[in-house]
Order: sequence, then structure tokens, then C-alpha cells
Amino acid sequence: MSEASRPIAVLGGTGPAGMGIALRWARAGETIIIGSRDAQRAQDAADKIADQIANQVKEKTGNHTRISGMENSAACAAADILVLTVPFEGQGALLKQLKPALRPGSILIDATVALAAGVGGRASRTLGVWQGSAAQQAAELVPKGVSVVAAFHNLSADLLNGDEDLDCDVIVCSDDASAAHLTRSLAAKIPGVRAIDGGKLENARILEQITALLIGLNIRHKGHGGIRITGLPPQAYD
Amino acid sequence: MSEASRPIAVLGGTGPAGMGIALRWARAGETIIIGSRDAQRAQDAADKIADQIANQVKEKTGNHTRISGMENSAACAAADILVLTVPFEGQGALLKQLKPALRPGSILIDATVALAAGVGGRASRTLGVWQGSAAQQAAELVPKGVSVVAAFHNLSADLLNGDEDLDCDVIVCSDDASAAHLTRSLAAKIPGVRAIDGGKLENARILEQITALLIGLNIRHKGHGGIRITGLPPQAYD
Repeated sequence: MSEASRPIAVLGGTGPAGMGIALRWARAGETIIIGSRDAQRAQDAADKIADQIANQVKEKTGNHTRISGMENSAACAAADILVLTVPFEGQGALLKQLKPALRPGSILIDATVALAAGVGGRASRTLGVWQGSAAQQAAELVPKGVSVVAAFHNLSADLLNGDEDLDCDVIVCSDDASAAHLTRSLAAKIPGVRAIDGGKLENARILEQITALLIGLNIRHKGHGGIRITGLPPQAYD
Repeated sequence: MSEASRPIAVLGGTGPAGMGIALRWARAGETIIIGSRDAQRAQDAADKIADQIANQVKEKTGNHTRISGMENSAACAAADILVLTVPFEGQGALLKQLKPALRPGSILIDATVALAAGVGGRASRTLGVWQGSAAQQAAELVPKGVSVVAAFHNLSADLLNGDEDLDCDVIVCSDDASAAHLTRSLAAKIPGVRAIDGGKLENARILEQITALLIGLNIRHKGHGGIRITGLPPQAYD
């Protein structure tokens, strides 16, 4: 099975961030499984994305959107590339629930940000996570042999759910170089996105903080903020 | 005295970041005082910047670079716009020393980043600062009536010291709106820089973290990283 045809499960994928990423990858020809606590809700989200793509490409022939919806554990069991797009306050419980379904060799791409909004605070502030970041907490909760990658924190969900190219970079952090490489190749399938190797998973704490900064800028300036990294040689963007 | 003719003291200004900011502002016609522990060293740095500008504009007439060097406390006493570009490990001691020279109504623009390199760790990691950020530590150390602004953390010193336009945004955080406004207008005098209101001083912690991320990217990819914020309406960049 080629890399591109391996299914990707977007867990907690009925929220705006998960839907947006699923939409962009489905459009790029990836096989997507939306995961949710509720299988019907997952299927409804998958149908909505499939319709959105079909409406856009109805003149084209030969397009077969491969997107389905399942309960989170079932989605997890059906894929070995997993993307976690849940609020921080749901991350730990979901990972504990998924543990029996997480196989060694799987890649868990974590986009979680510990926003203070999750405990009644502001979305422009973060909580301190003992391990250093939500992604490092995830790494502690998955079984041995599952590689955790931090990415996709800083993409606007609103823009992901639209049709325009994005104007953002995705910085990818992981202690597993090949999992990071695969994640960068997936990030680069989102039109307008450049993927950058951001080093070890411990650096995820900075990516997570940037989300809080962007949320603050969005509130203050009424925008859909993202970041571009400038000043690196072309080979840094792959 | 017009805003533009008020002298700006760049304290700890003989390092690469201070020299670079001083160069860019002197080129833009600002009156600059380089501050250093050693008055002669400050004067030498000022002369070097004046020469660099004179060499570039020798064909032009009427250019009078107004840049001088003084011991830090004297520089501080001679200006009411102060920029602090010292390593974190020197920030507290310098601010305590400057306290008698800091007048109410002054603006202290702090670019300090608490890099772990200052205590023998890595420049791609930060230290936890009790107050939340180096800038907030500064705010605690200055006399009442001095406004602290956090800015200029994420500009490459190498690029600042060159002749090319920068490709970076400067996010400015402060609890004093008029001090923040003045700082944004100074940031925008650096060619290629857009200034963005980043909200309250507490957000400085994220700006400081971004520097550590950029240093890590520079090491990994051999570049001079900066950031651009995308997706905000034009009026967000002033």
C-alpha cells in the first residue's frame, strides 16, 4: 500500500479544525476516516465534506472522495496515521480510551493546545502542562511504539474549511524523524502550506503558545491569523 | 521637541541586536545614544555605526547621523525612550543600577529573552521567569511611571546589521497604549518591518518563546529566521 493510500483517521474530527484538515486532505486524494464519540455524527461530518468536494468538482470526472465516519476507537483501529484535533480538556480521556486500539508503528499527530478557555479562562492564554506541552502529555499516554508528532496548531479552522489557498507554514516537531517527515509531506498537501522541520517534540510547547498569540491577534484585529517563517533557505521548506 | 527628534538610548547597545537596531534607526534619522557599561566601548560602537551609514550615503548631502555613545546610566539620563538589548542574565542587575536614572514618563522597550544559554543551557530553550516573561520582570524592576513595552525579540541581529530590507513583523505588547503606539511607529521605521499590536505585556512571554523557536530553526536550517503574521486585515499592520 502506498503512503498516499494509507487511511488517515482524524479523531475528534467533527470540530472545525478536524473538519478543515479532513476536507483539505480528502480534496488532495487522501483516504480519510472522521472519528467522533458518536458514529452517526462522524458519518454526517464525512458526508458533509464529501458533498462540499463533490459540489466543487462536479464538472470533473473520475473523482472519488474517500471519506467515511466512525466512532473514535473504530477509526483508530482502521488507520495507522491518526490526527488528534480535540480540545485539551478532552485529550487525556480520549487517549486513555483509545489505548487498546493504538498499535505500535502508528503515528499520532497531535494538534492539541492547552488553552485556558478549557477551564473557563481565555483562549488567548495557555495552561501550564507538567510535561511541557499537550503533545508531550500525549506522548506519555500512548503505548510504546506509537510515535507522536506535533503539528497543525497554527492553521485557521475557518480558512481550512474554505476553498482558498492558505498563507501559513506548519512547523512539525517530533522525536521520530520518519514520522515527522510523513507529517510534513501531509502538511504540504494543504494548498499554500509549507512544512518546516521544527526539531524535537519538546518544541511543541512553543507551537502551542503561538496558537494562543494568534487567537489574541484574531480577537484584537478581527482576522484569521497564521504565521510564516521567513529567512530560512529554500531547502528548509519541504 | 517632535517625537522623531527625541533621543533613543539603546542600553547594552554594543551587542549585535542593539547595534543593528541602532543602525536602522540612525539611518532613518533618529537620534541614537548607544549605552554600555564602558563609555569608550559605547562611543566606539556609535562611531562604527556612523561610519557604516556615512559609507553608504557618501554621495548624498545633508545627512547628519546623530549617534553617540555613553555609559548606560548617562545614556538613560539623556533619553526618555530606552531600549534594553542585554542578555537575560544581565537584565535585572542593569535595571537595578539604572533605577535612579529612570524618570517617570520614560518608556522602556524591552527585547530581553530568557534563553537557557544564559545559564549554560541551550539557546533554543527558555527559562521560566516567575513573572511570566523577561518583560514582566522588567516591569517589576522599573520605578512607577515608567512604561514597559515588549518588542523586537524576533528580528535577526545579522539581518539588522546588514543593508537589506527585513522580511519580519514586530509584535508589540504593553499595558500602556500610547507607549505601544510609539514603539510600533519606531518599529515601522526599520525597512521591511510591519508592526502589530500584540496586546498586553503578559503576552510578551509568547514573543520571547518565539525567539527560542527561531534560534532552533536557524541552527537546524542554517538561516536567519523571522516571522510574518498572515491573515490579519491591513489596518492591523501600522
